[in-house]
Amino acid sequence: MKTLIVFNHPYDGSFCNALLMAAKRGAEQCGECGVIYLDKENFNPVMSSHDLHAFVLARHEPEKALALLDKQVLAYKAKLEEAEHLAFIFPVWWMLMPALTKGFIDRVIVPLVAYDYAPDGTMQSRLEKLKRVTVVTTMNTPPDVYERNFGNALSKALFQGTFEAIGIKNCHWISLNMVSGVDEQQRERWLKRVEEYFSSETF
Amino acid sequence: MKTLIVFNHPYDGSFCNALLMAAKRGAEQCGECGVIYLDKENFNPVMSSHDLHAFVLARHEPEKALALLDKQVLAYKAKLEEAEHLAFIFPVWWMLMPALTKGFIDRVIVPLVAYDYAPDGTMQSRLEKLKRVTVVTTMNTPPDVYERNFGNALSKALFQGTFEAIGIKNCHWISLNMVSGVDEQQRERWLKRVEEYFSSETF
Repeated sequence: MKTLIVFNHPYDGSFCNALLMAAKRGAEQCGECGVIYLDKENFNPVMSSHDLHAFVLARHEPEKALALLDKQVLAYKAKLEEAEHLAFIFPVWWMLMPALTKGFIDRVIVPLVAYDYAPDGTMQSRLEKLKRVTVVTTMNTPPDVYERNFGNALSKALFQGTFEAIGIKNCHWISLNMVSGVDEQQRERWLKRVEEYFSSETF
Repeated sequence: MKTLIVFNHPYDGSFCNALLMAAKRGAEQCGECGVIYLDKENFNPVMSSHDLHAFVLARHEPEKALALLDKQVLAYKAKLEEAEHLAFIFPVWWMLMPALTKGFIDRVIVPLVAYDYAPDGTMQSRLEKLKRVTVVTTMNTPPDVYERNFGNALSKALFQGTFEAIGIKNCHWISLNMVSGVDEQQRERWLKRVEEYFSSETF
């Protein structure tokens, strides 16, 4: 199984970085694992007027639209097309993903890259190999508070509102909560759990 | 009353741009109105390791933290400190704010800029003049669907999870829905409503 992890954290010593290493170790037990390092690759998360023009042209003038797409977006398109398991690892800031990950959604989950339009205008995934999307996050809010007070805003937007909307229904969220307060043993248990999860082809 | 509008849309001909003009006309009827054009000012929405370091130092070594802050963030800090009414205008993409606006939250709503820590560690707004936060958005999802299926993810994160969390409780959301399908008359009514809203000092 081919895994592609989209990673976002500015600090190399972060727990997210340890989670990335664990996920990679797991994924490599059942196949290849590629990583997109959004920070280190200086991904530009800002939707430009060119991007928006491509978005508008995509349905009826796909060739013109493709010609407008950024090189970095096209490079990520090639990686996405090979992925069977797509994962995101990032810290939750102000109850949501950081801007860099949101920009990956805004600029890469676009028509002609991640989905096409059916004749009736609905979205259909064009990532034919993709079987699963996983999001691994860290936050300092308890899970029940995040659900009750913030309505699980992250998974609502990223799963129901994005991946499920383009037809990818097999979405999983590994939410690691109250991270700053836990001890080393709990962190080790989480890393082990993440490694095992990514090593499994069945889901 | 001093109004500060944080604007985010990459296309000058957008309806968001018309909303900005209407909001500005309204705000100028009751005082000064400044605008932060996130796209045109090339705001960098990506939290750097420097920013993160400043965030970590802020509570116990504020002078060191301030020295690490980006010039653009400091320029926005000066504008925020004067604002009595802070507003955001942006399109909803994938159920949330665009990356650029999320980056404004990540990088500018930080300790020593937008809030300080009380002795018990809770956040307290340091924007002493700020009386109201308003968000004006466009989207193509009906309001009841956005509430039912996506739990109003945007207002949950941006109001309850951000501004209310730092003590700014007076938050209002003007959500304009199904924008791509409405006629010119409806757009005119919306622009008028927005102009009137921004011209009012009472709320």
